[in-house]
Amino acid sequence: MHPAEPVDLLITPRWLIPVEPHAVTLEDHAVAVRNGRIVAVCPVTEAETRFAPAERTDLPDHVLIPGLVNLHTHAAMSLMRGIADDLPLMRWLQEAIWPAEAKHASADFVRDGTLLAAIEMLHGGITCANDMYFYPDAAADAFSQVGMRAVIGMTVIEFPTGYAADAEDYLRKGLAARDRWRGEGLLRFAFAPHAPYTVSDASFERIVQLAHELGCPVHMHLHETTHEITESIATCGQRPLARLERLGLLDTDLIAVHAVHLDLHEIETLAAHNCSIAHCPTSNMKLASGAAPIKTMLARDLRVALGTDGAASNNRLDMFQEMRHAALLAKVTTGDASAFDAHEALRSATLAGATALRMENEIGSIVAGKAADLVAVSLASPECSPCFSPASHLVYAAGREHVTHVWVDGKPRIRDNTLLWQHNKELLQRVRVWQTFLKESASSQ
Amino acid sequence: MHPAEPVDLLITPRWLIPVEPHAVTLEDHAVAVRNGRIVAVCPVTEAETRFAPAERTDLPDHVLIPGLVNLHTHAAMSLMRGIADDLPLMRWLQEAIWPAEAKHASADFVRDGTLLAAIEMLHGGITCANDMYFYPDAAADAFSQVGMRAVIGMTVIEFPTGYAADAEDYLRKGLAARDRWRGEGLLRFAFAPHAPYTVSDASFERIVQLAHELGCPVHMHLHETTHEITESIATCGQRPLARLERLGLLDTDLIAVHAVHLDLHEIETLAAHNCSIAHCPTSNMKLASGAAPIKTMLARDLRVALGTDGAASNNRLDMFQEMRHAALLAKVTTGDASAFDAHEALRSATLAGATALRMENEIGSIVAGKAADLVAVSLASPECSPCFSPASHLVYAAGREHVTHVWVDGKPRIRDNTLLWQHNKELLQRVRVWQTFLKESASSQ
Repeated sequence: MHPAEPVDLLITPRWLIPVEPHAVTLEDHAVAVRNGRIVAVCPVTEAETRFAPAERTDLPDHVLIPGLVNLHTHAAMSLMRGIADDLPLMRWLQEAIWPAEAKHASADFVRDGTLLAAIEMLHGGITCANDMYFYPDAAADAFSQVGMRAVIGMTVIEFPTGYAADAEDYLRKGLAARDRWRGEGLLRFAFAPHAPYTVSDASFERIVQLAHELGCPVHMHLHETTHEITESIATCGQRPLARLERLGLLDTDLIAVHAVHLDLHEIETLAAHNCSIAHCPTSNMKLASGAAPIKTMLARDLRVALGTDGAASNNRLDMFQEMRHAALLAKVTTGDASAFDAHEALRSATLAGATALRMENEIGSIVAGKAADLVAVSLASPECSPCFSPASHLVYAAGREHVTHVWVDGKPRIRDNTLLWQHNKELLQRVRVWQTFLKESASSQ
Repeated sequence: MHPAEPVDLLITPRWLIPVEPHAVTLEDHAVAVRNGRIVAVCPVTEAETRFAPAERTDLPDHVLIPGLVNLHTHAAMSLMRGIADDLPLMRWLQEAIWPAEAKHASADFVRDGTLLAAIEMLHGGITCANDMYFYPDAAADAFSQVGMRAVIGMTVIEFPTGYAADAEDYLRKGLAARDRWRGEGLLRFAFAPHAPYTVSDASFERIVQLAHELGCPVHMHLHETTHEITESIATCGQRPLARLERLGLLDTDLIAVHAVHLDLHEIETLAAHNCSIAHCPTSNMKLASGAAPIKTMLARDLRVALGTDGAASNNRLDMFQEMRHAALLAKVTTGDASAFDAHEALRSATLAGATALRMENEIGSIVAGKAADLVAVSLASPECSPCFSPASHLVYAAGREHVTHVWVDGKPRIRDNTLLWQHNKELLQRVRVWQTFLKESASSQ
């Protein structure tokens, strides 16, 4: 008999949903991890003879899933969570969000807001976030501090902010941040032009060129409201998506955020270009933007992944909620109770997001060779009892509060519901200070 | 100076939302409780000189709200949570729910299922449920055991089940149960004819007569699907609501459950008759029934309260979720981000339900003289930080997992997140046995 193979960690959950292959729930299987990588997914009996683990985590009431991938957020906006709810979109932006950003957004604001968001996301089983905001250095610093995987947006807008003067300045600063964080294994960078209505043709052309040169993904808000579309037709004679196609954006495997209002031709065009949708159902409902036609998208082989959007328009960075809302909204808007089933929701919250970010060989499923981004969810509590289908429970019954363990790259970040990052308390004190500043500026409007 | 007035309990939360008056958030206020009743709601400084409390509960990071009222559930169906998801409605009923009920529904099934549901509801701040199922004696026993307020449905259907032979038998058994539980202060009874398509004109007329004689509320499923309406027109030449109006049902202050498909005239008719809607947004989305027009209902002064429906079609008995879903669904279906704001959601989850049940003088708001059904929610965690508006956080950011304390009739049921009922463990063991039985019958289909 061969001597047992040393591994760092052996996890033995009650159930395991690897996401690849699709719609499979394994029982009595183990995951072996070494050097941050998944070494094997195999029956527990096999694992026990084959591996000599330095550490073992038994999860007798739990389902183990891949770390959740949040394909669209503005992490730092967690500091504006609930600052102005139940307002129409333009009043919300003009009276609350933009003035607060103009007054307070800074590297410190972004660092603290991103730390707060990262902690919330880790607690809820999100191990990778695709972020879009200002001050990418500060965001990168925050994600790096708590040990969460992130794709940092190199945001581009034509108008000046405290952060940058013009599109060229945004690009320069974003690329400089990307250079500084090279070698930080959990961080990547993506171009993040804000939206068709805030970025010029010239800037888009420059971004397309750079995206091809550097191999960076591109993500942007697109077709979020009907207003955006009618305005584009009025000003440049084309729907935003047609303009982007003309400018070559779709050839970058574009991540189209929201995509609430698409006709069938546009869905097929995005699918043909291997683009992805970052569907943000809660934000789309809360801001009354509409319901993205995800059943049709999937039927036309257009990839649908999920995002939380920022906490200012959600107000939770909670991918369990997004899975549930994507499923419920798809069912009620199509009249088909079988639309977007639980396994589809799980794929959209994991592998689909990883693929959109071109990281499907690294993360998004529990498969040997991938990074050990893993999440354990306990289904032992009364509100999760009985349990006929763990996948169904993850989407319809459980919540992020049932997440007990989170590993990123094989390293524990949450253990027995407890965050292992040590500076939570000081951060929450700083959040209270930000709250006081923000409240004062809001009441002085 | 007068000697201090003895009270049983003084609660001092950071914030207090009494629901009456509407849309008010108090700070630095206390609630004094004696003999299960709210004695006073007043500033802490006043309370500290005026009252000598036997016990004091300080809640420095919490918002105190009235106990949530779940206006529609089938509590015992928690045993079928997630047994068959993502199926069209008729397949769900015919292939999963009805065969399981036919085989397993019994007094023991209902007692254990209702216990499980009651525990879940109490943990989530629900202090009163309006229940509709079979074996009302067993349901009453369960709610009574855990000390939760409930209105037990005296269900009526024309067809036979293991529980009763015909409509007359259902009525007789329901009324006998009502007699047996008379004097149990937390329990009331209501007539619960299942739906227009399962109850005859003769039975409806009998129920109307009895409801007037006994002063019992009536609640029933109504206009849940378009199929129900077209079938009624085909078989009796009237929409279901018109038939109920003809039979006198609307004169009982009817609680119409779901009411997804109503025209403007029907909304006005229900409002004119002082009826109430039990809006169940999650169930309506999950079963793809549609979105009830609650913005229009409220504009026409038709009372809208919230219900979870049963756990088999939700799959959570979670009124925080229903508040959030009611708000989000109203916004996205009307295109108005200001529709159904946070305070409206809170009222619909408390006082509106109490009023529908004719219990608005007893529960539903934090007002002197009412029963002390109270819920404390902690807003200290990262996912609830910062906090600009406690009401907004209750609807959009917090969840039932943030409920820390629950009192029913002044008695503690949950303290520091812990259920004080002692038989949780044995119950969960019995639930596992039921799960095995149900699974076997499901796989033998």
